[in-house]
Amino acid sequence: MTTNRLVRLRSRPVGMVRRDDFEIVDEPARDAGEGEFRVRIEYVSLDPAMRGWIAAGKSYVPPVEIGAVMRGFAAGHVDQSNHPDYKVGDAVAGLLGVQHYAVSKGERCFKVDPTKAPLERWIGGLGMPGQTAYFGLLEVGKPKPGETVVVSAASGAVGSIVGQIAKIVGCRAVGIAGGPEKCRYVVEELGFDACADYKGGNLAEELKAACPDGVDVYYENVGGEILDTVLPMMNLFGRIPVCGLISAYNATEPQPGPKNLRSILVNRLTMRGLIVFDFQDRMAEANEKLGQWHAEGRLRMREDVREGGIEAFPDVLNLLYTGGNFGKLVLKL
Amino acid sequence: MTTNRLVRLRSRPVGMVRRDDFEIVDEPARDAGEGEFRVRIEYVSLDPAMRGWIAAGKSYVPPVEIGAVMRGFAAGHVDQSNHPDYKVGDAVAGLLGVQHYAVSKGERCFKVDPTKAPLERWIGGLGMPGQTAYFGLLEVGKPKPGETVVVSAASGAVGSIVGQIAKIVGCRAVGIAGGPEKCRYVVEELGFDACADYKGGNLAEELKAACPDGVDVYYENVGGEILDTVLPMMNLFGRIPVCGLISAYNATEPQPGPKNLRSILVNRLTMRGLIVFDFQDRMAEANEKLGQWHAEGRLRMREDVREGGIEAFPDVLNLLYTGGNFGKLVLKL
Repeated sequence: MTTNRLVRLRSRPVGMVRRDDFEIVDEPARDAGEGEFRVRIEYVSLDPAMRGWIAAGKSYVPPVEIGAVMRGFAAGHVDQSNHPDYKVGDAVAGLLGVQHYAVSKGERCFKVDPTKAPLERWIGGLGMPGQTAYFGLLEVGKPKPGETVVVSAASGAVGSIVGQIAKIVGCRAVGIAGGPEKCRYVVEELGFDACADYKGGNLAEELKAACPDGVDVYYENVGGEILDTVLPMMNLFGRIPVCGLISAYNATEPQPGPKNLRSILVNRLTMRGLIVFDFQDRMAEANEKLGQWHAEGRLRMREDVREGGIEAFPDVLNLLYTGGNFGKLVLKL
Repeated sequence: MTTNRLVRLRSRPVGMVRRDDFEIVDEPARDAGEGEFRVRIEYVSLDPAMRGWIAAGKSYVPPVEIGAVMRGFAAGHVDQSNHPDYKVGDAVAGLLGVQHYAVSKGERCFKVDPTKAPLERWIGGLGMPGQTAYFGLLEVGKPKPGETVVVSAASGAVGSIVGQIAKIVGCRAVGIAGGPEKCRYVVEELGFDACADYKGGNLAEELKAACPDGVDVYYENVGGEILDTVLPMMNLFGRIPVCGLISAYNATEPQPGPKNLRSILVNRLTMRGLIVFDFQDRMAEANEKLGQWHAEGRLRMREDVREGGIEAFPDVLNLLYTGGNFGKLVLKL
């Protein structure tokens, strides 16, 4: 009998998640039924959106129910199959949950090629975060060659791809990241033109210096003071894709909004929220482009793989909200 | 010799404008030169944007210089002309300044037909405010039949037209206005489906009741707490044209931004600033439609015409920022 170790949501966190908001449970792994396959999961993705998924209240997807398996992207190999498209041994990635074994009919799941990239990358830059960067920048940001694109959380899973795609389409790419090590990585390893350090105490000045022609596209992952700092630097008819507002995800009180909202009017900005699922019918296009650029060596990706097993899930998740990770955060089972 | 009485900007106001931020000057009216015509102005338009025009700092048009004639829309009759398209006696409206006589080459000026509507209406619902409503709602808000459109400052120059166009294109129109008298006017005279009173202490509840299917388009003239109240009620893929943020125009400190900005992400909203001048090449279309709906009795307009002469300009302007006007505010010279 195969045992499935899994993470269940026990209570809705207040502020940062705590270990006892979850419980780790061992139970018999279910067998794949008719039209299903089972995946032995090797990597679980930690994504900022997870904090929203376990909060009460209206969001873009229904919240994870109390007592349910924690929602999450994961990657592994098929170990049982009654599904015509999936064979035992296939490598797959998708929304499989935070657990060791997942049974799926194939929704929000896709086969991946581990000869092209390591398994954990298919839940990172070649998976949902990469797709989010692709559609958010190109479809919402609509960058034109020669324009300046700024992205917050620039060393993270989404931001790192946003800046590199900006370079590929002929823009100046400027990151915002926390600390000199991440900033150096963003410029030297990822090839951004500049990176401003939000922990350096001088973000506005650093950004102004890095964006001598102002900002045409600001790809927002963070919100809060960083958004307020960038708003007045926006050029006429600038675009702000809002992909994340991570600075407020653990807040227990409503956070102050941007004081510089007037820039939206004065500069006729467009600010637009997006969720990758809105582009579900165009995933093949994103995956093809991301795969091609990756194969050509034009998209560099870095995973921050954490050991500790599924028990470490709550602690590892919190790293996202403190800037404690460096690259796409992944938990190895 | 004809005397021109005019308003010059003396100093940049701090907070609400004061009388001594301006000076009233009598000087000889200039004659129309080659290719020019002169207008004897009868009505001056008071618009919320004026506060921005006299503030220092970057905005969508250069600020009025200290010592210059106050910028403003106005309407009157041509009393001298060396311009092929304008004859003495023609009624005209345009950006002619806050003064009794203006000499123009015709830029941002157009001939109007006083048999179709009284002169003051051509600087109101049939002028810039009407055009702003037209493009802001239809081009930025993109309302679809059956959707719910909410507009703030609903009894004002722009808002009153927004709601009526929303009805014309088949939407539910809900206003936000200050006090029972304005709310009654918005529903009974303008034909909105409902109007919520922001002075009634219960705006959120009133709006929820008035918008049982949520809000698809929120046409923003005000900002501040009203924006914060509407944001969480927005439907998926809702649109927020930002036409004005009048609640902050006289602020001497940066005003808090919307706490509920998260709605932009969760509901994938589009928030977009607009200025009527961005649609300069499509004015003929707006003017034709507005004129047609007005002639058909489908667009009702109300002007709040103030006496007192040009000397009253600063006091009358302040009415806009305190909700003291009722309808399009106009100063009669």
